[in-house]
Amino acid sequence: MGNYAFGVDIGGTTVKIGLFDRNGCVLDKWEIPTVKDNEGSSILPDVAQSLLEKMKEKGIGEDDLEGIGIGVPGAVDSEGTLVSGAVNIGWKPFNIPKVMSAYINVPVRAANDANAAAFGEMWQGGGKGYSNMVAVTLGTGVGGGIIVNGDIITGATGAAGEIGHIHMEDSETEVCGCGNKGCLEQYASATGVVRLAKRRLAQDDTPSAVRKGTLSAKSVFDAVKDGDEVAMQIAEQFGRYLGKGLAAVANVVNPEVFVIGGGVSKAGDVLLDLVKPELQKYTFPASRNVKLALAQLGNDAGIYGAAGLILCEK
Amino acid sequence: MGNYAFGVDIGGTTVKIGLFDRNGCVLDKWEIPTVKDNEGSSILPDVAQSLLEKMKEKGIGEDDLEGIGIGVPGAVDSEGTLVSGAVNIGWKPFNIPKVMSAYINVPVRAANDANAAAFGEMWQGGGKGYSNMVAVTLGTGVGGGIIVNGDIITGATGAAGEIGHIHMEDSETEVCGCGNKGCLEQYASATGVVRLAKRRLAQDDTPSAVRKGTLSAKSVFDAVKDGDEVAMQIAEQFGRYLGKGLAAVANVVNPEVFVIGGGVSKAGDVLLDLVKPELQKYTFPASRNVKLALAQLGNDAGIYGAAGLILCEK
Repeated sequence: MGNYAFGVDIGGTTVKIGLFDRNGCVLDKWEIPTVKDNEGSSILPDVAQSLLEKMKEKGIGEDDLEGIGIGVPGAVDSEGTLVSGAVNIGWKPFNIPKVMSAYINVPVRAANDANAAAFGEMWQGGGKGYSNMVAVTLGTGVGGGIIVNGDIITGATGAAGEIGHIHMEDSETEVCGCGNKGCLEQYASATGVVRLAKRRLAQDDTPSAVRKGTLSAKSVFDAVKDGDEVAMQIAEQFGRYLGKGLAAVANVVNPEVFVIGGGVSKAGDVLLDLVKPELQKYTFPASRNVKLALAQLGNDAGIYGAAGLILCEK
Repeated sequence: MGNYAFGVDIGGTTVKIGLFDRNGCVLDKWEIPTVKDNEGSSILPDVAQSLLEKMKEKGIGEDDLEGIGIGVPGAVDSEGTLVSGAVNIGWKPFNIPKVMSAYINVPVRAANDANAAAFGEMWQGGGKGYSNMVAVTLGTGVGGGIIVNGDIITGATGAAGEIGHIHMEDSETEVCGCGNKGCLEQYASATGVVRLAKRRLAQDDTPSAVRKGTLSAKSVFDAVKDGDEVAMQIAEQFGRYLGKGLAAVANVVNPEVFVIGGGVSKAGDVLLDLVKPELQKYTFPASRNVKLALAQLGNDAGIYGAAGLILCEK
């Protein structure tokens, strides 16, 4: 049994890589560029070369390497096959472990990058100690990673956890990125908070710090912390939508904890305080003691989760 | 490896039992009364005695019995432990396989009865051939059983699949059985259809067959089949609620198929036709090709599912 594992998180611009010990501590982390030429055909060889150099540098042999975990921006099935390719990096469908282990002969596992990040938060982040967890990413959009009994749920077509597209609002007139109207993402993402803010500000002329400077999710939550009343109204509306949406998720999979990450989550505890009462209000009693926590690994969640695919013992 | 298995479905009044062969064919089925005296302490001994008599009658030895599956009306964890007891039959928490295998020394597995029924529909019913499925029961309430990669999801507290309590309607004034207001169950159950019907009928005096005789989900759907316009309006509203609710479920677990059972589902294909467009409308594009099917096993789903816990090979 090896003492080390690599966690690899392949993004559209860079590949993040981490060297982990058995306890899930990151010993080293670095990045290499993602070369997307020729359908991204050099990405895995580049990664392999970088890993081999690191092994040489650290004096780690193949027999001391437990394996390599890889997160990729596309739907991946439980065998590690990229089901429909990964358009951001030019990849067509193929079995990732098969190809990667041809370069370095150790166990290789692959997963969707968002799911890997969710897994990372469960293993070493905000969801540590839990095995039934939903990771919620509040960024440009709203994403979800659903973990049941320690395993990531991928769904029939790799689209499990698309919780940002739960329908919330019949009266919505603007169109979501998915083509529907009234999706959770239209209210609970960074752009969603801005949408709610613009609508609130247009209602009347009540003075507010939110009217000054550049309007963003951050400016709204900063004003909330300063006690701004209009900002609080916007944030409460955000909390109602997100709480109600997460309640629907809780009524389906009954998780122990929601771990909230992404740019909007930088608002911190104030965000959890807004969401919690709404979440509890709309959740079935037996599922109501679900916890809310903040993500802890930030941009490193992907490499943690990828390494966790190899090292995490349930 | 044994050629037979028993499927046992313990209800509040009777215990349904089925003898199955390896192919999932039911060879015999019967019922015994559920004796709830003394905290239901004689239920498992009664079941064991009935099974032993059947084995004697059929000349089946313990070595020819692959195992016994048991569905019970309470939350059961993956080890077969009844987590919080089963109030309907007087049971306190205990490990069901451990006790049952003391009577008959074969592998025993236990599950929540609704989840077992869902599993039965996947194994031999409306979900046959699928391994990512949500069973929806439209009865007095609205229940759900969620199956991911062939396994039933129980959730952190056994409350996964409580899809009847997804919040649908902010303007609802009546209270759901769970204490909340505006749950899916308040519109998509048998009583929910009656609620929608009463509200529609109170709106005006448009003549309708639904105004005659006893109002029920059946009377509404019978009138729909006869082309009754008011009944159609009621049914369309039912379809909107259920479609929207199932879309939320699809956006969380991305199943291949919803299998619809329970009394209301006797309306048949007309019900599916009402729900399908609404389901597709509110589902994320990548999850949108989810199928809708009718349950096929009726009240036998529980014994099929219980036997399937033993016999079903994923």
